[in-house]
Amino acid sequence: MTSTIDHLQSGAASDSAERVHHAGRAARVAAKQLAVLTRADKDAALAALADALVAATASIVAANESDLARGRGSGMPEGLQDRLRLTPERVASIADALRQLAALPDPVGDVVRGSTLANGLQLRQVRVPMGVVGMVYESRPNVTVDAAGLGLKSGNAMILRGGSAAAETNRVIVEVLRDALSHQGISPDAVQLLDGGHEDVDALITARGLVDLVIPRGSDRLIQAVVQGATVPVIETGVGNCHVYIDAAADPQQAVAIALNSKTDRPSVCNAAESLLVHRDIADSILPVLYDALTAAQVTLHADDRASQVAERVGAPYVPATEEDFATEYLDLQLSVAVVDDLAAAIAHIDRFGSGHTEVIVTQDRSAARKFVAEVDAAVVAVNASSRFTDGGEFGFGAEIGISTQKLHARGPMGLQELTSTKWVVEGDGQIR
Amino acid sequence: MTSTIDHLQSGAASDSAERVHHAGRAARVAAKQLAVLTRADKDAALAALADALVAATASIVAANESDLARGRGSGMPEGLQDRLRLTPERVASIADALRQLAALPDPVGDVVRGSTLANGLQLRQVRVPMGVVGMVYESRPNVTVDAAGLGLKSGNAMILRGGSAAAETNRVIVEVLRDALSHQGISPDAVQLLDGGHEDVDALITARGLVDLVIPRGSDRLIQAVVQGATVPVIETGVGNCHVYIDAAADPQQAVAIALNSKTDRPSVCNAAESLLVHRDIADSILPVLYDALTAAQVTLHADDRASQVAERVGAPYVPATEEDFATEYLDLQLSVAVVDDLAAAIAHIDRFGSGHTEVIVTQDRSAARKFVAEVDAAVVAVNASSRFTDGGEFGFGAEIGISTQKLHARGPMGLQELTSTKWVVEGDGQIR
Repeated sequence: MTSTIDHLQSGAASDSAERVHHAGRAARVAAKQLAVLTRADKDAALAALADALVAATASIVAANESDLARGRGSGMPEGLQDRLRLTPERVASIADALRQLAALPDPVGDVVRGSTLANGLQLRQVRVPMGVVGMVYESRPNVTVDAAGLGLKSGNAMILRGGSAAAETNRVIVEVLRDALSHQGISPDAVQLLDGGHEDVDALITARGLVDLVIPRGSDRLIQAVVQGATVPVIETGVGNCHVYIDAAADPQQAVAIALNSKTDRPSVCNAAESLLVHRDIADSILPVLYDALTAAQVTLHADDRASQVAERVGAPYVPATEEDFATEYLDLQLSVAVVDDLAAAIAHIDRFGSGHTEVIVTQDRSAARKFVAEVDAAVVAVNASSRFTDGGEFGFGAEIGISTQKLHARGPMGLQELTSTKWVVEGDGQIR
Repeated sequence: MTSTIDHLQSGAASDSAERVHHAGRAARVAAKQLAVLTRADKDAALAALADALVAATASIVAANESDLARGRGSGMPEGLQDRLRLTPERVASIADALRQLAALPDPVGDVVRGSTLANGLQLRQVRVPMGVVGMVYESRPNVTVDAAGLGLKSGNAMILRGGSAAAETNRVIVEVLRDALSHQGISPDAVQLLDGGHEDVDALITARGLVDLVIPRGSDRLIQAVVQGATVPVIETGVGNCHVYIDAAADPQQAVAIALNSKTDRPSVCNAAESLLVHRDIADSILPVLYDALTAAQVTLHADDRASQVAERVGAPYVPATEEDFATEYLDLQLSVAVVDDLAAAIAHIDRFGSGHTEVIVTQDRSAARKFVAEVDAAVVAVNASSRFTDGGEFGFGAEIGISTQKLHARGPMGLQELTSTKWVVEGDGQIR
């Protein structure tokens, strides 16, 4: 029996590998065309893709309704249904994001640095597309369009693997995009969708020589599975166990506003705060105000011993925090709270529990801010600002394909530039060594 | 029996994992200290390391002699013995490389870009060390010192895994370096050497959370083993199947000089040319001159059909090229030769056989040069210059830790800057979304 199952599995895996490798080869051919398109060509194509999506609104919404019906049938929670749902307005807004991409500068061809060597050789490092980029993601179908648009503008062919919950929606969207690319004289293989089982993901993330980069975007489980299984280079995007540290020298009003905004503005995203650290010298005065504001905003507080004592004193609702709480990315209206002895203790706590996404200090003390910025190891370190600013749009990148929490190649919000590599161009008149 | 062996293997693997994880944790602590050292501190330490190596010349050379004796005993070829051998002069020159590193600018703290957002937030992207960098390499013991020096200057703790042939030499060198670091008030765990079996490499390349980056440097087999087994991010360094393409519009003198230099200046390194492509319109006139020059330099020619016909006509020695030849990085006085129909055929040949390292065109035709530069997908594309210029020293980086042939993070020669990541610093006055 075992050998039969093995045989079946390896049969499915090898079919899948063949299909994915075929897609990869077609993508490489398309990538060669994309790499030499002018900005004008790419911007015209982006506008055409946007128009095509709007024109196909009815069939996109119909496909989406079929995904939603399937989701409801299998008990999909309302929150997830809402992430999946496309209305004509949402289709218009997704199309608009493509038009906004057209307005952004083209990263390809940027000269990063250059010099003339002693022997007269002229050297320049120029941005070029990555080539073929794989993307593995979940749920929201707008990611399909964003990824296709960012790929086109940065000259990369994209092989997309969306979540099965959005399968019909993604299939129709990608058909529309491919058709519109063809009408622009661009190979439709610049955007491809994989719709096989998990074997497709396995084949994609091990397609060395065909795929230059894979970006997983979604749950921690998805990201870890891609990282563990990949032999193609991967950029991890982000789990955000983000902290707001309120220093002894914090402006109390700023502290309350920043903590509240970081936690409650949009609790389900990775740049929302999950943990509040308060310097012991300010805890007695500021925690009651914070508890009031957070409780009013429906936030459940998970308080450590010292933070609990203050809650007891003022009668604020809380639950005792476990060690597990401080390691948890709630993505919900929940917040762990700890009182720390000093700045060094706050940094040590972040070192231990942080995920390297966004860490905030609220302080008017210049040297405390400088120490926090220098010593906290994260993609984004913010002084007196909400954690919610860690975002490609907010940073002025125009669009983002994810937020990298790793240190290689890209760290923090990833826009068009992060989807490029570089090439050294050496120009001479016969120089030899 | 099988289960006993499995048990023994997993025992060795878990001992090894424990040892490597211990090293990783110590390196992380050291990395925190390194990250905030000033350039002055680091430069003083580099000078002290150089002095310590020179002072320890006798014991380093003695350890090296014991490695060499072991190598001779097991039949190590003279070429490899020479790469392994350290003389007092070589020790002095290795120490000097550390002093030259001190003279280079510090990449840490460089502001890569920055802006002020509409809401007044000040944003800057600043270079920071990677953290803990693992390096897996072979043979030459100077790599041990270079890696330690580059790591120190870029603020990274280094975990080194050298080749077993240089085990004694590396052990003594690392002892000397660690001792000198201690005397400078820097944690000796900033430089650590793994000397266990292959299980150590396996543990190193899977130590996620402890090791930020692994760089393999050596044979293709070593690099592939690391890439296949790693879950930590990897930068591949390079196999160089480099081509020199002589266009119809080449200056013949330049063409001969560049082909000869690219092949023969130092055949054993990755930036040496392995393949010569000649436009058919110039083949009859230039190949005889090239054959003369290359044959005089002891180069064995592996010629395709059309290149063989010319060789036959002029009586030049050659062997017929197989497809395998065009895929081979000889690292030796051998060269594959093909006649191509045109520039597009040359680019297609490079696409098929090139390893993305360095590709050269020799031409006086401006549009041919532009097309070659735009369409050839390699770390370095050179016009009228030897392939041998792909080198950190030649590019003015001062030192290199390897030549990346991948597209993520670093492409081409990797110097200090390529050993850094970045961090976004956001400064505000209470901004919220």
